[in-house]
Amino acid sequence: MVVVMDHHADEKQINAVIRRLEKAGFQIHLSRGVERTIIGAIGDRTRAGDLGLEAMDGVEKVVPILQPFKLASRIFKQEDSVVKVGNLAIGGEIIHIMAGPCAVESREQLLEVAHQVKEAGATILRGGAYKPRTSPYSFQGLEKEGLELLAEARAATGLYIVTEVMDTRAVPLVAEYADILQIGTRNMQNFNLLKEVAAVNKPVLLKRGLSATIEEWLMAAEYIMAGGNHQVILCERGIRSFETYTRNTLDLCAVPVVKHLSHLPVVVDPSHAIGKWRYVPAMARAALAAGADGLLVEVHPNPQEALCDGPQSLTPDNFAAMMADLRKMAAHLGRKLE
Amino acid sequence: MVVVMDHHADEKQINAVIRRLEKAGFQIHLSRGVERTIIGAIGDRTRAGDLGLEAMDGVEKVVPILQPFKLASRIFKQEDSVVKVGNLAIGGEIIHIMAGPCAVESREQLLEVAHQVKEAGATILRGGAYKPRTSPYSFQGLEKEGLELLAEARAATGLYIVTEVMDTRAVPLVAEYADILQIGTRNMQNFNLLKEVAAVNKPVLLKRGLSATIEEWLMAAEYIMAGGNHQVILCERGIRSFETYTRNTLDLCAVPVVKHLSHLPVVVDPSHAIGKWRYVPAMARAALAAGADGLLVEVHPNPQEALCDGPQSLTPDNFAAMMADLRKMAAHLGRKLE
Amino acid sequence: MVVVMDHHADEKQINAVIRRLEKAGFQIHLSRGVERTIIGAIGDRTRAGDLGLEAMDGVEKVVPILQPFKLASRIFKQEDSVVKVGNLAIGGEIIHIMAGPCAVESREQLLEVAHQVKEAGATILRGGAYKPRTSPYSFQGLEKEGLELLAEARAATGLYIVTEVMDTRAVPLVAEYADILQIGTRNMQNFNLLKEVAAVNKPVLLKRGLSATIEEWLMAAEYIMAGGNHQVILCERGIRSFETYTRNTLDLCAVPVVKHLSHLPVVVDPSHAIGKWRYVPAMARAALAAGADGLLVEVHPNPQEALCDGPQSLTPDNFAAMMADLRKMAAHLGRKLE
Amino acid sequence: MVVVMDHHADEKQINAVIRRLEKAGFQIHLSRGVERTIIGAIGDRTRAGDLGLEAMDGVEKVVPILQPFKLASRIFKQEDSVVKVGNLAIGGEIIHIMAGPCAVESREQLLEVAHQVKEAGATILRGGAYKPRTSPYSFQGLEKEGLELLAEARAATGLYIVTEVMDTRAVPLVAEYADILQIGTRNMQNFNLLKEVAAVNKPVLLKRGLSATIEEWLMAAEYIMAGGNHQVILCERGIRSFETYTRNTLDLCAVPVVKHLSHLPVVVDPSHAIGKWRYVPAMARAALAAGADGLLVEVHPNPQEALCDGPQSLTPDNFAAMMADLRKMAAHLGRKLE
Repeated sequence: MVVVMDHHADEKQINAVIRRLEKAGFQIHLSRGVERTIIGAIGDRTRAGDLGLEAMDGVEKVVPILQPFKLASRIFKQEDSVVKVGNLAIGGEIIHIMAGPCAVESREQLLEVAHQVKEAGATILRGGAYKPRTSPYSFQGLEKEGLELLAEARAATGLYIVTEVMDTRAVPLVAEYADILQIGTRNMQNFNLLKEVAAVNKPVLLKRGLSATIEEWLMAAEYIMAGGNHQVILCERGIRSFETYTRNTLDLCAVPVVKHLSHLPVVVDPSHAIGKWRYVPAMARAALAAGADGLLVEVHPNPQEALCDGPQSLTPDNFAAMMADLRKMAAHLGRKLE
Repeated sequence: MVVVMDHHADEKQINAVIRRLEKAGFQIHLSRGVERTIIGAIGDRTRAGDLGLEAMDGVEKVVPILQPFKLASRIFKQEDSVVKVGNLAIGGEIIHIMAGPCAVESREQLLEVAHQVKEAGATILRGGAYKPRTSPYSFQGLEKEGLELLAEARAATGLYIVTEVMDTRAVPLVAEYADILQIGTRNMQNFNLLKEVAAVNKPVLLKRGLSATIEEWLMAAEYIMAGGNHQVILCERGIRSFETYTRNTLDLCAVPVVKHLSHLPVVVDPSHAIGKWRYVPAMARAALAAGADGLLVEVHPNPQEALCDGPQSLTPDNFAAMMADLRKMAAHLGRKLE
Repeated sequence: MVVVMDHHADEKQINAVIRRLEKAGFQIHLSRGVERTIIGAIGDRTRAGDLGLEAMDGVEKVVPILQPFKLASRIFKQEDSVVKVGNLAIGGEIIHIMAGPCAVESREQLLEVAHQVKEAGATILRGGAYKPRTSPYSFQGLEKEGLELLAEARAATGLYIVTEVMDTRAVPLVAEYADILQIGTRNMQNFNLLKEVAAVNKPVLLKRGLSATIEEWLMAAEYIMAGGNHQVILCERGIRSFETYTRNTLDLCAVPVVKHLSHLPVVVDPSHAIGKWRYVPAMARAALAAGADGLLVEVHPNPQEALCDGPQSLTPDNFAAMMADLRKMAAHLGRKLE
Repeated sequence: MVVVMDHHADEKQINAVIRRLEKAGFQIHLSRGVERTIIGAIGDRTRAGDLGLEAMDGVEKVVPILQPFKLASRIFKQEDSVVKVGNLAIGGEIIHIMAGPCAVESREQLLEVAHQVKEAGATILRGGAYKPRTSPYSFQGLEKEGLELLAEARAATGLYIVTEVMDTRAVPLVAEYADILQIGTRNMQNFNLLKEVAAVNKPVLLKRGLSATIEEWLMAAEYIMAGGNHQVILCERGIRSFETYTRNTLDLCAVPVVKHLSHLPVVVDPSHAIGKWRYVPAMARAALAAGADGLLVEVHPNPQEALCDGPQSLTPDNFAAMMADLRKMAAHLGRKLE
């Protein structure tokens, strides 16, 4: 890191900073300029945050140089990580499509859509049993019954299951049913939940927080990895900006950037990002072109009757048409769909 | 709400929307223009979100008219709510200052600062026993031991205690020790946690989410109130914007706006908002001027040694000087400090 | 539009609103609910903004229903607009690539890169003669000499020229040399400049403002069209968000959205959006996949020596490799590159 | 500045960076760590931006250390600048209130409101003769006639005049009538306009751009100062965030921050920031508490009939009431109103 001293800083203040850094095992390089003294410090990046340097007298600012994440970093592990989900490999040549309804609503709905997305080429079924809803008066999910229906759909179709877990107390139960545990955007910095899924031997799909920087997102992955679970799949799902026509702003730049900074696989959720089904196929295509290893797409047998997020759900027919297009796109990119 | 039909929408589509609205108990007002048909619907605001109208054929957009919150609304309750904390009243004539360290670090640190902030006029002691930290490698709090130290500081000073709870499982324990349960910015939409504190008979300090709109913030309050706990204190603590010089952007406009839309008391945390102690007194003064019912301020006996957020912590001396200034400011505003 | 009255609004206030709307030629639909009276008004969308309704007593809010743009709207003109640049057609089957340096620096630099991008398949040469620079101490462009060099490069290569105009006074001069007048992101709401280019019979490339909503962007196009120049090409170039790793956040959602709302062609500038050359090819590919009609790409014969925006400039070799990839991508999309 | 080399960077790349820096007159401090080599460079801050270092092979990032502004910096000039407007001093003990209508609409309107704001204690009359409007179909201002009316109002009341100039061509004319030239938020980075007002010997009120960082705002001031005009008054008027209830988000943190970084006076425009007159007095009060040297407030004799921004305009009565309150607030702050 680099510590920039205030232009009024005196020797005593400069020495106090140096002493604290040296005590913490950092190697020091001092640069004295006309306007500023600058202290370069090289050492354990994971300790830099706790030194309290910015609060020291005479310090103007502290500029971190190395990324604060380690296990998630491409420097720590140079080759791409592949996350195994049963006999599937996320992050390899095959692009995996995770599709299904926003919420599990009923046995009929779920089985119908599961067969439809399987038919069109999806390999993983998405569907929420626990739903984070802005309003306490909205449908909150079928909970355990939803998990059982997901398991039934898996048995019937061979699709793997990705579903959200929102509460530390529910982790053991959800882990019993799901093949991939999803951490939703609102829980990306629910650190207790991250620690809890870190203790489970299941892949975790970590959605980017609504206003999380790429660095914070990778630090959330670091929580899970530091807790012992390296099976992390990152999911870009749109960030909050000032634009209101779309539900969120899909940050596709994050795909090549994260693949440069980290070895973890990255998937994209175009449905939540743009919020209107009409635009989902274009953004799905763009996500693959940007380098995504998979997609998370909302499909509902009858979006008009959906209890949640109908406006952004594709009909099964639209989904099948999109899949045919994506299959050709994947080939152009030197990859393939199942 | 108002449903705007696409300019290509046909009679069948218009009638389908009307039927769904009528079935849900809404009263319909139809406006047919040259370019658009517009359907006004008047009824239970809390049901509007689940009708899936935006997914219906021929619907261009659905414009909500009424705010989706009810119990938190000024329309539901016209007079200001006052939240009782022991013999204190938050939201009344007296402006309450909640001060203390970011994290409880040790018995000595906490008792020292508790006596100092009490001396200067604070009525409530803040301090985290459980700390949400961006990095898994940072100090995570003393947990139960921290709660015990807070209780000891209360016994020693007479200050009430506000402290954060991050995990549904910890709510009973934290509620045993704290006088006010704090929901942190990263957990504003941790709905399970909101439901859990809703079931406790203790005041809740609900921090605004990092990128939460005012409406989402009031909906989070609605979760707690709908669960039976009406003792909610709102806390503006800065939102995320593009500006990087300050830690966050303190949205003081939110103070008069929330007081217009809602009857709940509002306090402001200038320390987390601006992130640098030097600017805290100016923003504390501005917060009172904007109408805040209280402040949450970080004070540390030795900010340079703080395990967390030292750069934004006031020294006890600076805090005392600020309190003297705020006392005069409060008088000018027709209010007072303890 | 819909006027939502305050729940305390009385008959006199309601009638005052109705009278003002009727006087302005609007047709009224009144809905009286228990909590609110709502006034629907149908009429000339372009007049709605000037009625001052939100300032009237008893009015809570005014919700616009129709988009405020007209000439730029897909409703006004249903078929895609094609903008002719010499014998090129922007917005047709062929995807046009506009490439070249950020700034025109010298005769050698410009001619060298012009030949290189022409060779690789670009049809239009970009290069700034007038440069908007954050710092007054940075290189500000060669001005008239730069325009002359651009004209020379056109003569030498057959490429058409797109270059920025920043000042109303410079419009006649720039229009003499350029084939497309570029309005930069910082001038998207420089309304005098918009009016000035509206009076010229040349295509205009209108970059989206750094923090402009899609609606504001289309309103800026409306300025140019209302002034008589319908040859507008829209350019998405990244918006400002909280993310700092990338220069801006490329909003590719805007591509299908704008093509739905408007008939105008849309091109994308991945270079300014992401700000680092390494990621430009991935985002270029994603832009085509999202439906862009063209690209604006920075290419420099020696990015390390560039006077402006070197970090985001491709070398000619990297550009040629990207073009080969995009050519195949275009074919997959049923379009082609020159 | 600090240049962080990629962890794969080799000696040749490191030396190339060092050579370029030395050639530009920078003094070098080299730090070789296990993971990274870091090059500290001390020299002329205003040249750092043009070195193209980020585009050099082996460079990961360049971290600026010093602020890029010089003339606007508190380091360059330690004592507060006071800008003289006739016999008024902006930035001194007296807080100046600039009040008036959004747009000059007619002789009657302007003279009426001028007398009213003068009566209540304003010292400067605001009013737009040239109006930047989002829609080409909205009222665009009375132009020269508006300037003449402003001059007439000055003669009648003794108030000084602040009015916006939007076009380089109009600077001489506006400078003939105005006492302070206003650069609007949309033109903060209209660099030609900045250079033009830099050449005029009149104070300039520089509004912060809608999405400008504090640093960009001070760089815009630097343009005016570098051009020879040091009479710059900064105006915070709200930034764009995701919040939609308020028109913009007033960034009051910017007030103490800018006063720390720069010696220039800072005023606040609460009207444009919050966009609803009801909240203006609270935010005006907060702005003074945060340290503002003045306010820019919209007042209209009849907001309901305003051709522009009626919803955020105070009535003369509300303005007078606010002024009485602010007068007491100023006294508490050790300052005063005229």
